[in-house]
Amino acid sequence: MTQGPRFTTLAASLPATVPFVGPETQERLQGYDFKARLGANENVFGPSPKAIEAMQKAAGDIWMYGDPENHDLRHTLAAHHKVGAENIVVGEGIDGLLGYLARLIVGPGDKVVTSDGAYPTFNFHVAGFGGELVKLPYENDREDLAALIAKAAEINAKLVYFANPDNPMASWLTGADIEAALVDMPAGTLLVLDEAYIEFAPENAIPRIAIDDPRVIRMRTFSKAYGMAGARVGYAMGAADTITAFNKIRNHFGMNRAAQAAALVALEDQDWLAQTIANVAQARATISRIASDSGLTALPSATNFVAIDCGADAAFAKAVLDNIVAQGVFVRMPFAAPGNRCIRLSCGRPQDLALFEEVLPAALAAARA
Amino acid sequence: MTQGPRFTTLAASLPATVPFVGPETQERLQGYDFKARLGANENVFGPSPKAIEAMQKAAGDIWMYGDPENHDLRHTLAAHHKVGAENIVVGEGIDGLLGYLARLIVGPGDKVVTSDGAYPTFNFHVAGFGGELVKLPYENDREDLAALIAKAAEINAKLVYFANPDNPMASWLTGADIEAALVDMPAGTLLVLDEAYIEFAPENAIPRIAIDDPRVIRMRTFSKAYGMAGARVGYAMGAADTITAFNKIRNHFGMNRAAQAAALVALEDQDWLAQTIANVAQARATISRIASDSGLTALPSATNFVAIDCGADAAFAKAVLDNIVAQGVFVRMPFAAPGNRCIRLSCGRPQDLALFEEVLPAALAAARA
Repeated sequence: MTQGPRFTTLAASLPATVPFVGPETQERLQGYDFKARLGANENVFGPSPKAIEAMQKAAGDIWMYGDPENHDLRHTLAAHHKVGAENIVVGEGIDGLLGYLARLIVGPGDKVVTSDGAYPTFNFHVAGFGGELVKLPYENDREDLAALIAKAAEINAKLVYFANPDNPMASWLTGADIEAALVDMPAGTLLVLDEAYIEFAPENAIPRIAIDDPRVIRMRTFSKAYGMAGARVGYAMGAADTITAFNKIRNHFGMNRAAQAAALVALEDQDWLAQTIANVAQARATISRIASDSGLTALPSATNFVAIDCGADAAFAKAVLDNIVAQGVFVRMPFAAPGNRCIRLSCGRPQDLALFEEVLPAALAAARA
Repeated sequence: MTQGPRFTTLAASLPATVPFVGPETQERLQGYDFKARLGANENVFGPSPKAIEAMQKAAGDIWMYGDPENHDLRHTLAAHHKVGAENIVVGEGIDGLLGYLARLIVGPGDKVVTSDGAYPTFNFHVAGFGGELVKLPYENDREDLAALIAKAAEINAKLVYFANPDNPMASWLTGADIEAALVDMPAGTLLVLDEAYIEFAPENAIPRIAIDDPRVIRMRTFSKAYGMAGARVGYAMGAADTITAFNKIRNHFGMNRAAQAAALVALEDQDWLAQTIANVAQARATISRIASDSGLTALPSATNFVAIDCGADAAFAKAVLDNIVAQGVFVRMPFAAPGNRCIRLSCGRPQDLALFEEVLPAALAAARA
């Protein structure tokens, strides 16, 4: 008599299970809270205290919608990057912006190129709009931008995804490498340059790309170096025609008002950012030392996390991971070979890393047994 | 040599201009801030102080992503509504959820029925997925649910949008009226019952609809009665199959962590909600008195805003509106006839309404001149 809603053919075809399992879910399943939260590349050093204060102050104004144009934040970002406000769109984290971008560009059957094991949320959005993902392997634990671009030319891809630095391997290309690879970009292909972790990378990892170059859109975030993952503030930079297209479809009133206010203040506190970057560099060195003490190798990192090569296959790394998690330390591991011989650890505070150091030997012993 | 990204045919066809102009934009254009903010149906009485406190406390944890499952909030909402957690999906405001719903159900050429002058954001999302909107006129300043449903049957619509109480007219149907109209729902049509303002309405405005009835999805929000518009927390309730479909496409890490925490606390402070509802009822009476003192008629309202019939045509109402705005009071007006003979005023505090009372006579005089 009654029947359910008629989903689109595409929506009906999408898998009901999704790859997003947060640490809270794991905590609920295991019945206790993690002692250290080092699995989601969050920045435990947190945002500028001034940003926290701005957020707390804005809480009293939360009865008001945020500015749908993100005017103040967008203009401050534009000044910071020396581009026009029309070159920046603010959204609900890079995740939200990737969703909008996929919607603008990807239709059923459209080809998209990425690396096997790269950011799953991008893949989720592309598949969600019916796109066909073509994945290339990592090369020496790095995304192979030249190969990605060559593949895009070969199959007439509409998007190429490339993160610099990369997640989950923490590797990077130099800006010069990227500029060189761009020479071969086919017409009509857009490079999604995900720079979520760029503030942690060496200065020379930033390519010089003209802001009005229509071949590239860059993604940035307040979730990582600025320590505000829970606020959901990301932004995309690119040619004005590309950027303004987001206004056709985005959730104009989607931004949290207190998050808008805090991001503005966080951006202005570059001293805190510098301190965070120093803290993270120190943590990377500590992680490298801990790995080495256990006979493992920490891969070079230009991010706030480190991939630790467990020295064997994926099953072994998984056994190490599971044991670490069972001991109350939240970590994750890369999804795909050959990265899945590693576990991935976020740069924690000294006390977080001390916990990791404490549990690692037993985890290795258990995995070897 | 280089060319821009290849947008989908649909994306390329969408209008670049959008209907969302926030009060901040108006303030920037006019060069001064509004003295009273009564145009966006925000709840100036604000959220529970306990919710503000929860938000401020959570600011210190903002380095962590929010729980992608919204577990605690969803389960607390489920208990509140006496339904299962699988019957509730939390999202970035009703606006965000309407976008997801349109994406799940509406494809190019699919028919959708709404009222002419009803919620423009719904229309924005439907058009954004290529849907074809069919609009019926208001009847006696109320959305005509029976006619909307009859039209849906006639044209084989996939969605029918109906807000109870209605925005912008503040009118409502009884739950019994809605239940009676539902008898004629065609198979395969989903009624989007937007109850953003339901907490302000008489108890008997709430229809009894089984939670697993696949013909209806209900939208609720923390933006209105709970006073948290800037936090972006809405939820949809309905049959589990409909609700879980959102997981296929939603931005799983889209929720602000502090907003999740605050919504939970706001929900639990039902005393504050009761006080807010009383404050709003008082404000409605004041607005009605102010209108009457100027020879105008305030329409009956079951919301936190009131449509005031300016007694002439749309041009006259627009002139009144513009003059009120020019005097520093932010108000809006319905878009479509016959509602656009009115201006629409949110329920402010006594001091906000005093400002409105102060500027109204001059605005009327100017419009009559």
